[in-house]
Amino acid sequence: MSRFPRIESRQNPRIKNLVKLRTTKERRSQGLCLIEGELELTRAIAAGVPLRELYLCPEHWRDERAANELISQAESQQAKVFELTRECFEKISLREGSDGLFGVAEFAEARLTSLKLPDEPLLVIVEGIEKPGNLGALIRTAEAAGANALIACNAVTDFFNPQVIRNSRGLVFSLPCLSVDSDALKTFLTEKSIRTAATTPAADATHWDADLRGPLAILAGAEHEGLSNEWLAKADIKLRIPMRGEADSLNVNTATAIVLFEALRQRS
Amino acid sequence: MSRFPRIESRQNPRIKNLVKLRTTKERRSQGLCLIEGELELTRAIAAGVPLRELYLCPEHWRDERAANELISQAESQQAKVFELTRECFEKISLREGSDGLFGVAEFAEARLTSLKLPDEPLLVIVEGIEKPGNLGALIRTAEAAGANALIACNAVTDFFNPQVIRNSRGLVFSLPCLSVDSDALKTFLTEKSIRTAATTPAADATHWDADLRGPLAILAGAEHEGLSNEWLAKADIKLRIPMRGEADSLNVNTATAIVLFEALRQRS
Repeated sequence: MSRFPRIESRQNPRIKNLVKLRTTKERRSQGLCLIEGELELTRAIAAGVPLRELYLCPEHWRDERAANELISQAESQQAKVFELTRECFEKISLREGSDGLFGVAEFAEARLTSLKLPDEPLLVIVEGIEKPGNLGALIRTAEAAGANALIACNAVTDFFNPQVIRNSRGLVFSLPCLSVDSDALKTFLTEKSIRTAATTPAADATHWDADLRGPLAILAGAEHEGLSNEWLAKADIKLRIPMRGEADSLNVNTATAIVLFEALRQRS
Repeated sequence: MSRFPRIESRQNPRIKNLVKLRTTKERRSQGLCLIEGELELTRAIAAGVPLRELYLCPEHWRDERAANELISQAESQQAKVFELTRECFEKISLREGSDGLFGVAEFAEARLTSLKLPDEPLLVIVEGIEKPGNLGALIRTAEAAGANALIACNAVTDFFNPQVIRNSRGLVFSLPCLSVDSDALKTFLTEKSIRTAATTPAADATHWDADLRGPLAILAGAEHEGLSNEWLAKADIKLRIPMRGEADSLNVNTATAIVLFEALRQRS
Protein backbone atom coordinates (compact mmCIF):
# COMPACT_ATOMS: atom_id res chain seq x y z
CA MET A 1 0.00 0.00 0.00
CA SER A 2 1.53 3.29 -1.07
CA ARG A 3 1.60 6.11 1.43
CA PHE A 4 0.75 8.56 -1.34
CA PRO A 5 -2.62 9.28 -2.93
CA ARG A 6 -2.92 7.08 -5.98
CA ILE A 7 -4.22 8.27 -9.35
CA GLU A 8 -5.76 5.51 -11.44
CA SER A 9 -7.80 7.39 -14.01
CA ARG A 10 -6.42 9.20 -17.03
CA GLN A 11 -9.43 11.49 -16.71
CA ASN A 12 -8.22 12.76 -13.33
CA PRO A 13 -8.14 16.60 -13.39
CA ARG A 14 -4.46 16.64 -12.34
CA ILE A 15 -3.53 14.43 -15.29
CA LYS A 16 -5.53 16.65 -17.58
CA ASN A 17 -3.71 19.72 -16.30
CA LEU A 18 -0.31 18.10 -16.85
CA VAL A 19 -1.24 17.59 -20.48
CA LYS A 20 -2.41 21.22 -20.71
CA LEU A 21 0.95 22.40 -19.36
CA ARG A 22 2.63 21.13 -22.52
CA THR A 23 1.86 24.44 -24.23
CA THR A 24 3.91 27.58 -23.70
CA LYS A 25 0.74 29.62 -23.24
CA GLU A 26 -0.56 27.46 -20.43
CA ARG A 27 2.84 27.33 -18.71
CA ARG A 28 3.05 31.12 -18.79
CA SER A 29 -0.49 31.53 -17.57
CA GLN A 30 -0.03 29.12 -14.64
CA GLY A 31 3.64 30.02 -13.97
CA LEU A 32 4.40 26.31 -13.87
CA CYS A 33 6.63 23.97 -15.84
CA LEU A 34 6.96 20.21 -16.29
CA ILE A 35 10.16 18.50 -15.21
CA GLU A 36 10.71 14.85 -16.07
CA GLY A 37 13.54 12.67 -14.84
CA GLU A 38 15.58 12.23 -11.68
CA LEU A 39 18.56 14.24 -12.93
CA GLU A 40 16.46 17.18 -14.08
CA LEU A 41 14.34 17.24 -10.90
CA THR A 42 17.43 16.99 -8.69
CA ARG A 43 19.09 19.90 -10.48
CA ALA A 44 15.93 22.01 -10.30
CA ILE A 45 15.61 21.43 -6.54
CA ALA A 46 19.32 22.05 -5.99
CA ALA A 47 18.92 25.36 -7.83
CA GLY A 48 16.12 26.38 -5.46
CA VAL A 49 13.22 25.94 -7.87
CA PRO A 50 9.99 25.46 -5.84
CA LEU A 51 8.58 22.01 -6.62
CA ARG A 52 4.79 21.91 -6.32
CA GLU A 53 3.90 18.34 -7.31
CA LEU A 54 5.76 15.08 -7.76
CA TYR A 55 4.32 12.10 -9.67
CA LEU A 56 5.71 8.62 -9.15
CA CYS A 57 5.56 5.41 -11.14
CA PRO A 58 7.74 2.97 -9.16
CA GLU A 59 7.51 0.34 -11.91
CA HIS A 60 9.64 2.66 -14.06
CA TRP A 61 12.20 3.55 -11.37
CA ARG A 62 15.81 2.82 -12.14
CA ASP A 63 17.30 3.77 -8.79
CA GLU A 64 15.04 3.39 -5.77
CA ARG A 65 17.38 5.20 -3.41
CA ALA A 66 17.59 8.23 -5.68
CA ALA A 67 13.80 8.22 -6.07
CA ASN A 68 13.31 8.14 -2.30
CA GLU A 69 15.81 10.95 -1.85
CA LEU A 70 13.82 13.02 -4.32
CA ILE A 71 10.58 12.23 -2.45
CA SER A 72 12.13 13.43 0.84
CA GLN A 73 13.22 16.65 -0.78
CA ALA A 74 9.79 17.15 -2.32
CA GLU A 75 8.07 16.53 1.02
CA SER A 76 10.43 18.86 2.84
CA GLN A 77 9.18 21.67 0.62
CA GLN A 78 5.53 20.65 0.97
CA ALA A 79 5.16 19.47 -2.60
CA LYS A 80 2.17 17.18 -3.17
CA VAL A 81 3.25 13.62 -4.03
CA PHE A 82 1.11 11.17 -6.01
CA GLU A 83 1.55 7.63 -7.16
CA LEU A 84 0.31 6.82 -10.66
CA THR A 85 -0.64 3.65 -12.43
CA ARG A 86 1.61 2.81 -15.34
CA GLU A 87 -1.17 3.77 -17.72
CA CYS A 88 -1.61 7.21 -16.14
CA PHE A 89 2.13 7.81 -15.98
CA GLU A 90 2.55 6.98 -19.63
CA LYS A 91 -0.12 9.56 -20.42
CA ILE A 92 1.90 12.35 -18.77
CA SER A 93 5.41 11.19 -19.66
CA LEU A 94 7.16 13.14 -22.40
CA ARG A 95 9.97 10.76 -23.17
CA GLU A 96 10.68 7.20 -24.09
CA GLY A 97 12.34 5.18 -21.37
CA SER A 98 11.11 7.42 -18.55
CA ASP A 99 12.48 6.77 -15.07
CA GLY A 100 9.08 7.16 -13.40
CA LEU A 101 9.66 10.59 -11.86
CA PHE A 102 7.75 13.64 -13.02
CA GLY A 103 7.31 17.00 -11.34
CA VAL A 104 5.60 20.34 -11.63
CA ALA A 105 7.52 23.40 -10.49
CA GLU A 106 7.15 27.13 -10.38
CA PHE A 107 9.48 28.94 -12.68
CA ALA A 108 10.66 32.48 -12.99
CA GLU A 109 12.94 33.78 -15.71
CA ALA A 110 15.95 35.72 -14.45
CA ARG A 111 15.91 39.51 -14.94
CA LEU A 112 18.69 41.73 -16.22
CA THR A 113 18.37 44.12 -13.26
CA SER A 114 18.79 41.37 -10.68
CA LEU A 115 21.59 39.50 -12.47
CA LYS A 116 24.61 39.11 -10.20
CA LEU A 117 27.82 39.03 -12.18
CA PRO A 118 31.48 38.65 -11.20
CA ASP A 119 34.09 41.27 -12.15
CA GLU A 120 34.92 39.56 -15.40
CA PRO A 121 31.67 37.98 -16.53
CA LEU A 122 31.40 35.49 -19.37
CA LEU A 123 28.00 35.58 -21.05
CA VAL A 124 26.38 33.85 -24.00
CA ILE A 125 23.91 35.86 -26.07
CA VAL A 126 21.70 33.90 -28.44
CA GLU A 127 19.74 35.49 -31.23
CA GLY A 128 16.69 33.69 -32.54
CA ILE A 129 17.54 30.05 -31.96
CA GLU A 130 14.44 28.20 -33.11
CA LYS A 131 14.69 24.64 -31.93
CA PRO A 132 14.19 23.98 -28.22
CA GLY A 133 16.60 21.04 -28.47
CA ASN A 134 19.37 23.30 -29.77
CA LEU A 135 18.69 25.90 -27.09
CA GLY A 136 18.85 23.20 -24.42
CA ALA A 137 22.16 21.88 -25.78
CA LEU A 138 23.59 25.39 -25.77
CA ILE A 139 22.52 25.98 -22.16
CA ARG A 140 24.24 22.73 -21.16
CA THR A 141 27.44 23.81 -22.89
CA ALA A 142 27.35 27.36 -21.51
CA GLU A 143 26.78 26.13 -17.96
CA ALA A 144 29.59 23.60 -18.27
CA ALA A 145 31.95 26.35 -19.44
CA GLY A 146 31.10 28.43 -16.39
CA ALA A 147 29.20 31.15 -18.26
CA ASN A 148 27.36 33.45 -15.85
CA ALA A 149 24.16 33.76 -17.86
CA LEU A 150 22.58 32.96 -21.19
CA ILE A 151 20.63 35.83 -22.67
CA ALA A 152 18.15 35.42 -25.52
CA CYS A 153 17.86 38.59 -27.50
CA ASN A 154 14.69 39.84 -29.18
CA ALA A 155 12.99 36.52 -28.83
CA VAL A 156 10.12 35.42 -26.70
CA THR A 157 12.07 32.31 -25.85
CA ASP A 158 10.41 29.66 -23.75
CA PHE A 159 13.26 28.42 -21.60
CA PHE A 160 10.90 26.10 -19.75
CA ASN A 161 9.82 24.08 -22.75
CA PRO A 162 10.24 20.41 -21.74
CA GLN A 163 12.70 19.86 -24.60
CA VAL A 164 14.90 22.73 -23.38
CA ILE A 165 14.83 21.31 -19.86
CA ARG A 166 15.69 17.88 -21.15
CA ASN A 167 18.45 18.80 -23.60
CA SER A 168 20.01 21.09 -21.00
CA ARG A 169 19.85 18.13 -18.58
CA GLY A 170 18.15 20.41 -16.07
CA LEU A 171 20.93 23.00 -16.25
CA VAL A 172 18.40 25.62 -17.38
CA PHE A 173 17.65 25.83 -13.65
CA SER A 174 21.31 26.25 -12.66
CA LEU A 175 22.27 28.85 -15.25
CA PRO A 176 20.49 32.23 -15.21
CA CYS A 177 18.56 32.36 -18.52
CA LEU A 178 16.88 35.58 -19.66
CA SER A 179 14.94 37.03 -22.58
CA VAL A 180 15.83 40.67 -23.15
CA ASP A 181 15.06 43.11 -25.92
CA SER A 182 17.90 44.27 -28.11
CA ASP A 183 18.09 47.90 -26.92
CA ALA A 184 18.00 47.06 -23.21
CA LEU A 185 20.71 44.49 -23.78
CA LYS A 186 22.96 46.91 -25.64
CA THR A 187 22.62 49.48 -22.86
CA PHE A 188 23.43 46.82 -20.26
CA LEU A 189 26.56 45.66 -22.13
CA THR A 190 27.81 49.24 -22.48
CA GLU A 191 27.18 50.06 -18.82
CA LYS A 192 29.01 46.95 -17.66
CA SER A 193 31.82 47.35 -20.23
CA ILE A 194 31.21 43.88 -21.56
CA ARG A 195 32.75 43.30 -24.99
CA THR A 196 30.94 41.18 -27.55
CA ALA A 197 32.58 38.49 -29.69
CA ALA A 198 31.03 37.29 -32.95
CA THR A 199 32.11 34.36 -35.08
CA THR A 200 32.21 35.09 -38.81
CA PRO A 201 34.16 33.50 -41.68
CA ALA A 202 35.10 37.06 -42.76
CA ALA A 203 37.18 37.77 -39.63
CA ASP A 204 40.96 38.04 -39.85
CA ALA A 205 41.68 36.71 -36.36
CA THR A 206 41.10 33.09 -35.41
CA HIS A 207 39.45 32.36 -32.07
CA TRP A 208 42.92 31.40 -30.85
CA ASP A 209 44.39 34.79 -31.75
CA ALA A 210 41.54 36.96 -30.44
CA ASP A 211 41.88 38.14 -26.84
CA LEU A 212 38.95 36.57 -25.00
CA ARG A 213 39.89 37.68 -21.50
CA GLY A 214 37.99 40.28 -19.48
CA PRO A 215 34.25 40.90 -19.42
CA LEU A 216 32.94 39.09 -22.50
CA ALA A 217 29.70 38.08 -24.22
CA ILE A 218 29.88 35.45 -26.94
CA LEU A 219 27.23 35.97 -29.62
CA ALA A 220 25.42 32.99 -31.16
CA GLY A 221 23.14 33.39 -34.17
CA ALA A 222 20.10 31.45 -35.34
CA GLU A 223 20.50 27.98 -36.88
CA HIS A 224 20.11 29.02 -40.50
CA GLU A 225 20.47 32.77 -40.77
CA GLY A 226 23.35 33.14 -38.31
CA LEU A 227 23.87 36.39 -36.47
CA SER A 228 21.99 39.48 -37.69
CA ASN A 229 23.95 42.36 -39.19
CA GLU A 230 22.78 44.50 -36.31
CA TRP A 231 24.81 42.41 -33.85
CA LEU A 232 27.59 41.32 -36.18
CA ALA A 233 28.48 44.87 -37.23
CA LYS A 234 28.70 46.14 -33.68
CA ALA A 235 30.66 43.20 -32.25
CA ASP A 236 33.84 44.36 -30.49
CA ILE A 237 35.70 41.20 -31.46
CA LYS A 238 35.27 39.36 -34.73
CA LEU A 239 36.82 35.95 -34.96
CA ARG A 240 36.72 32.91 -37.15
CA ILE A 241 37.07 29.25 -36.36
CA PRO A 242 39.56 27.91 -38.91
CA MET A 243 38.16 25.06 -40.97
CA ARG A 244 40.29 22.53 -42.75
CA GLY A 245 37.85 20.58 -44.94
CA GLU A 246 34.92 21.20 -47.26
CA ALA A 247 32.73 22.36 -44.37
CA ASP A 248 32.09 26.09 -44.38
CA SER A 249 30.29 26.28 -41.05
CA LEU A 250 29.67 24.47 -37.79
CA ASN A 251 26.40 24.14 -35.98
CA VAL A 252 25.69 26.93 -33.54
CA ASN A 253 26.17 24.82 -30.42
CA THR A 254 29.46 23.39 -31.69
CA ALA A 255 30.84 26.79 -32.73
CA THR A 256 29.84 28.40 -29.43
CA ALA A 257 31.36 25.52 -27.45
CA ILE A 258 34.68 25.90 -29.27
CA VAL A 259 34.83 29.64 -28.61
CA LEU A 260 33.66 29.28 -24.98
CA PHE A 261 36.31 26.70 -24.14
CA GLU A 262 39.00 28.73 -25.90
CA ALA A 263 37.92 31.69 -23.74
CA LEU A 264 38.24 29.43 -20.70
CA ARG A 265 41.73 28.39 -21.76
CA GLN A 266 42.82 32.01 -22.09
CA ARG A 267 41.22 32.97 -18.79
CA SER A 268 42.65 30.11 -16.73
CA MET B 1 6.83 21.63 -71.35
CA SER B 2 9.60 20.04 -69.36
CA ARG B 3 12.41 18.31 -71.25
CA PHE B 4 12.42 15.54 -68.62
CA PRO B 5 10.07 12.58 -68.24
CA ARG B 6 7.33 13.59 -65.85
CA ILE B 7 6.03 11.39 -63.02
CA GLU B 8 2.48 12.15 -62.05
CA SER B 9 1.39 9.10 -60.11
CA ARG B 10 2.43 8.22 -56.60
CA GLN B 11 2.01 4.58 -57.64
CA ASN B 12 4.86 4.90 -60.14
CA PRO B 13 7.40 2.08 -59.52
CA ARG B 14 10.24 4.61 -59.16
CA ILE B 15 8.37 6.46 -56.42
CA LYS B 16 7.67 3.18 -54.69
CA ASN B 17 11.34 2.26 -54.79
CA LEU B 18 12.37 5.62 -53.32
CA VAL B 19 10.11 4.90 -50.37
CA LYS B 20 11.60 1.40 -50.04
CA LEU B 21 15.11 2.90 -49.93
CA ARG B 22 14.26 4.51 -46.59
CA THR B 23 15.28 1.30 -44.80
CA THR B 24 18.88 0.36 -44.10
CA LYS B 25 18.27 -3.16 -45.35
CA GLU B 26 17.00 -1.99 -48.73
CA ARG B 27 19.81 0.55 -49.12
CA ARG B 28 22.39 -2.15 -48.44
CA SER B 29 20.73 -4.59 -50.77
CA GLN B 30 20.51 -2.10 -53.66
CA GLY B 31 23.78 -0.29 -52.82
CA LEU B 32 21.92 3.00 -53.20
CA CYS B 33 21.18 5.92 -50.92
CA LEU B 34 18.79 8.87 -50.93
CA ILE B 35 20.19 12.39 -51.03
CA GLU B 36 17.87 15.34 -50.58
CA GLY B 37 18.80 18.98 -50.98
CA GLU B 38 21.01 21.07 -53.23
CA LEU B 39 23.86 21.36 -50.72
CA GLU B 40 23.96 17.63 -50.00
CA LEU B 41 23.71 16.66 -53.68
CA THR B 42 26.41 19.15 -54.65
CA ARG B 43 28.77 17.82 -51.99
CA ALA B 44 28.11 14.22 -52.98
CA ILE B 45 28.87 14.96 -56.65
CA ALA B 46 31.97 16.99 -55.74
CA ALA B 47 33.18 14.00 -53.71
CA GLY B 48 32.83 11.75 -56.76
CA VAL B 49 29.73 9.85 -55.65
CA PRO B 50 28.01 8.38 -58.74
CA LEU B 51 24.51 9.90 -59.04
CA ARG B 52 22.02 7.53 -60.65
CA GLU B 53 18.76 9.48 -60.56
CA LEU B 54 17.71 13.07 -59.98
CA TYR B 55 14.12 14.08 -59.17
CA LEU B 56 12.97 17.65 -59.63
CA CYS B 57 10.07 19.66 -58.31
CA PRO B 58 10.64 23.18 -59.71
CA GLU B 59 7.77 24.62 -57.61
CA HIS B 60 9.94 23.99 -54.54
CA TRP B 61 13.20 25.36 -55.99
CA ARG B 62 14.86 28.15 -54.11
CA ASP B 63 17.69 28.88 -56.52
CA GLU B 64 16.99 28.10 -60.17
CA ARG B 65 20.60 28.61 -61.26
CA ALA B 66 21.89 26.18 -58.65
CA ALA B 67 19.22 23.66 -59.64
CA ASN B 68 20.18 23.92 -63.31
CA GLU B 69 23.86 23.53 -62.44
CA LEU B 70 23.00 20.34 -60.56
CA ILE B 71 20.98 19.07 -63.55
CA SER B 72 23.98 19.65 -65.87
CA GLN B 73 26.23 17.73 -63.53
CA ALA B 74 23.71 14.91 -63.27
CA GLU B 75 23.36 14.70 -67.05
CA SER B 76 27.12 14.76 -67.55
CA GLN B 77 27.33 11.54 -65.55
CA GLN B 78 24.35 9.97 -67.32
CA ALA B 79 22.02 10.12 -64.32
CA LYS B 80 18.34 9.81 -65.17
CA VAL B 81 16.44 13.03 -64.53
CA PHE B 82 12.68 13.19 -63.81
CA GLU B 83 10.26 15.96 -63.10
CA LEU B 84 7.66 15.25 -60.44
CA THR B 85 4.31 16.75 -59.58
CA ARG B 86 4.20 18.45 -56.22
CA GLU B 87 2.13 15.58 -54.86
CA CYS B 88 4.66 12.96 -55.99
CA PHE B 89 7.58 14.97 -54.72
CA GLU B 90 6.03 15.36 -51.33
CA LYS B 91 5.63 11.61 -51.16
CA ILE B 92 9.38 11.06 -51.58
CA SER B 93 10.66 14.10 -49.66
CA LEU B 94 12.10 13.40 -46.22
CA ARG B 95 12.14 16.90 -44.84
CA GLU B 96 9.99 19.92 -44.26
CA GLY B 97 10.76 22.87 -46.48
CA SER B 98 12.40 20.79 -49.19
CA ASP B 99 14.17 22.63 -52.00
CA GLY B 100 12.74 20.37 -54.69
CA LEU B 101 15.92 18.41 -55.44
CA PHE B 102 16.21 14.73 -54.61
CA GLY B 103 18.72 12.18 -55.81
CA VAL B 104 19.64 8.52 -55.70
CA ALA B 105 23.33 7.65 -55.63
CA GLU B 106 25.56 4.66 -55.34
CA PHE B 107 27.46 4.51 -52.12
CA ALA B 108 30.45 2.60 -50.91
CA GLU B 109 31.84 2.72 -47.41
CA ALA B 110 35.56 3.44 -47.21
CA ARG B 111 37.82 0.51 -46.23
CA LEU B 112 40.66 0.49 -43.75
CA THR B 113 43.04 -1.09 -46.24
CA SER B 114 42.46 1.58 -48.88
CA LEU B 115 42.48 4.56 -46.49
CA LYS B 116 45.04 7.14 -47.57
CA LEU B 117 46.45 9.01 -44.60
CA PRO B 118 49.02 11.79 -44.26
CA ASP B 119 52.13 11.41 -42.09
CA GLU B 120 50.41 12.77 -39.03
CA PRO B 121 46.79 11.69 -39.36
CA LEU B 122 43.98 12.98 -37.19
CA LEU B 123 41.16 10.45 -36.84
CA VAL B 124 37.88 10.30 -34.94
CA ILE B 125 36.81 6.90 -33.63
CA VAL B 126 33.19 6.59 -32.50
CA GLU B 127 31.93 3.73 -30.41
CA GLY B 128 28.23 2.90 -30.51
CA ILE B 129 26.65 6.27 -31.27
CA GLU B 130 22.95 5.49 -31.58
CA LYS B 131 21.22 8.48 -33.07
CA PRO B 132 21.79 9.16 -36.77
CA GLY B 133 21.40 12.90 -36.09
CA ASN B 134 24.28 12.82 -33.59
CA LEU B 135 26.46 10.81 -35.94
CA GLY B 136 25.76 13.31 -38.73
CA ALA B 137 26.64 16.25 -36.48
CA LEU B 138 29.89 14.56 -35.48
CA ILE B 139 30.83 13.92 -39.11
CA ARG B 140 30.25 17.60 -39.88
CA THR B 141 32.48 18.65 -36.99
CA ALA B 142 35.21 16.12 -37.79
CA GLU B 143 35.30 17.15 -41.44
CA ALA B 144 35.44 20.84 -40.51
CA ALA B 145 38.37 20.15 -38.20
CA GLY B 146 40.25 18.47 -41.02
CA ALA B 147 40.08 14.94 -39.60
CA ASN B 148 41.21 12.37 -42.16
CA ALA B 149 38.53 9.77 -41.41
CA LEU B 150 35.76 8.87 -39.02
CA ILE B 151 35.80 5.25 -37.94
CA ALA B 152 32.85 3.55 -36.26
CA CYS B 153 34.00 0.71 -34.08
CA ASN B 154 32.10 -2.52 -33.46
CA ALA B 155 28.92 -1.10 -34.86
CA VAL B 156 27.02 -1.83 -37.99
CA THR B 157 26.64 1.87 -38.54
CA ASP B 158 24.55 3.06 -41.44
CA PHE B 159 26.44 6.13 -42.59
CA PHE B 160 24.00 6.58 -45.48
CA ASN B 161 20.89 6.97 -43.36
CA PRO B 162 19.16 10.13 -44.68
CA GLN B 163 19.40 11.75 -41.24
CA VAL B 164 23.19 11.22 -41.17
CA ILE B 165 23.48 12.70 -44.66
CA ARG B 166 21.36 15.66 -43.63
CA ASN B 167 22.94 16.42 -40.26
CA SER B 168 26.40 16.09 -41.77
CA ARG B 169 25.24 18.53 -44.49
CA GLY B 170 26.46 16.07 -47.08
CA LEU B 171 29.96 15.93 -45.57
CA VAL B 172 29.56 12.17 -45.05
CA PHE B 173 30.52 12.02 -48.73
CA SER B 174 33.62 14.24 -48.28
CA LEU B 175 35.03 12.55 -45.18
CA PRO B 176 36.04 8.88 -45.39
CA CYS B 177 33.65 7.07 -43.00
CA LEU B 178 34.23 3.41 -42.10
CA SER B 179 32.81 0.67 -39.89
CA VAL B 180 35.56 -1.55 -38.54
CA ASP B 181 35.65 -4.27 -35.91
CA SER B 182 37.52 -3.58 -32.72
CA ASP B 183 40.42 -5.99 -33.22
CA ALA B 184 41.13 -4.91 -36.79
CA LEU B 185 41.09 -1.30 -35.66
CA LYS B 186 43.52 -1.92 -32.80
CA THR B 187 45.95 -3.65 -35.14
CA PHE B 188 45.67 -0.79 -37.61
CA LEU B 189 46.37 1.85 -34.93
CA THR B 190 49.40 -0.07 -33.67
CA GLU B 191 50.81 -0.59 -37.15
CA LYS B 192 50.43 3.08 -38.00
CA SER B 193 51.68 4.25 -34.57
CA ILE B 194 48.52 6.28 -34.06
CA ARG B 195 47.95 7.24 -30.43
CA THR B 196 44.42 7.30 -29.01
CA ALA B 197 43.01 10.07 -26.82
CA ALA B 198 40.03 9.51 -24.51
CA THR B 199 38.08 12.11 -22.57
CA THR B 200 37.30 11.10 -19.00
CA PRO B 201 36.55 13.16 -15.87
CA ALA B 202 39.07 10.95 -14.03
CA ALA B 203 42.06 12.21 -16.07
CA ASP B 204 44.69 14.45 -14.50
CA ALA B 205 45.58 16.37 -17.64
CA THR B 206 43.19 18.84 -19.23
CA HIS B 207 42.80 18.79 -23.00
CA TRP B 208 44.95 21.93 -23.03
CA ASP B 209 47.83 20.21 -21.20
CA ALA B 210 47.77 16.95 -23.13
CA ASP B 211 50.05 16.78 -26.16
CA LEU B 212 47.72 16.31 -29.13
CA ARG B 213 50.34 16.57 -31.88
CA GLY B 214 51.47 13.69 -34.05
CA PRO B 215 49.39 10.77 -35.36
CA LEU B 216 46.24 10.85 -33.23
CA ALA B 217 42.78 9.26 -32.96
CA ILE B 218 40.21 10.97 -30.75
CA LEU B 219 37.82 8.47 -29.15
CA ALA B 220 34.13 9.33 -28.79
CA GLY B 221 31.76 7.13 -26.76
CA ALA B 222 28.04 6.43 -27.02
CA GLU B 223 25.51 9.07 -25.95
CA HIS B 224 24.64 7.53 -22.60
CA GLU B 225 27.22 4.93 -21.70
CA GLY B 226 30.26 6.87 -22.90
CA LEU B 227 33.37 5.03 -23.96
CA SER B 228 33.69 1.32 -23.07
CA ASN B 229 36.33 0.25 -20.57
CA GLU B 230 37.98 -1.72 -23.34
CA TRP B 231 38.86 1.50 -25.18
CA LEU B 232 39.19 3.81 -22.20
CA ALA B 233 41.73 1.59 -20.42
CA LYS B 234 43.97 1.27 -23.44
CA ALA B 235 43.87 4.94 -24.47
CA ASP B 236 47.39 6.38 -24.79
CA ILE B 237 46.23 9.83 -23.70
CA LYS B 238 43.57 10.46 -21.09
CA LEU B 239 42.31 13.98 -20.79
CA ARG B 240 39.48 15.89 -19.22
CA ILE B 241 37.64 18.97 -20.34
CA PRO B 242 37.52 21.24 -17.30
CA MET B 243 33.99 22.16 -16.29
CA ARG B 244 33.15 25.17 -14.23
CA GLY B 245 29.47 24.72 -13.33
CA GLU B 246 27.08 22.03 -12.16
CA ALA B 247 27.40 20.16 -15.44
CA ASP B 248 29.41 16.97 -15.16
CA SER B 249 29.50 16.11 -18.83
CA LEU B 250 29.07 17.51 -22.33
CA ASN B 251 27.30 15.89 -25.22
CA VAL B 252 29.52 13.69 -27.34
CA ASN B 253 29.58 16.01 -30.34
CA THR B 254 30.41 19.05 -28.20
CA ALA B 255 33.16 17.26 -26.27
CA THR B 256 34.71 15.86 -29.45
CA ALA B 257 34.57 19.29 -31.13
CA ILE B 258 36.40 20.91 -28.21
CA VAL B 259 39.16 18.30 -28.24
CA LEU B 260 39.44 18.31 -32.05
CA PHE B 261 39.85 22.07 -32.25
CA GLU B 262 42.34 22.06 -29.38
CA ALA B 263 44.31 19.44 -31.34
CA LEU B 264 44.15 21.77 -34.34
CA ARG B 265 45.45 24.68 -32.25
CA GLN B 266 48.40 22.63 -31.05
CA ARG B 267 49.14 21.30 -34.53
CA SER B 268 49.00 24.66 -36.34
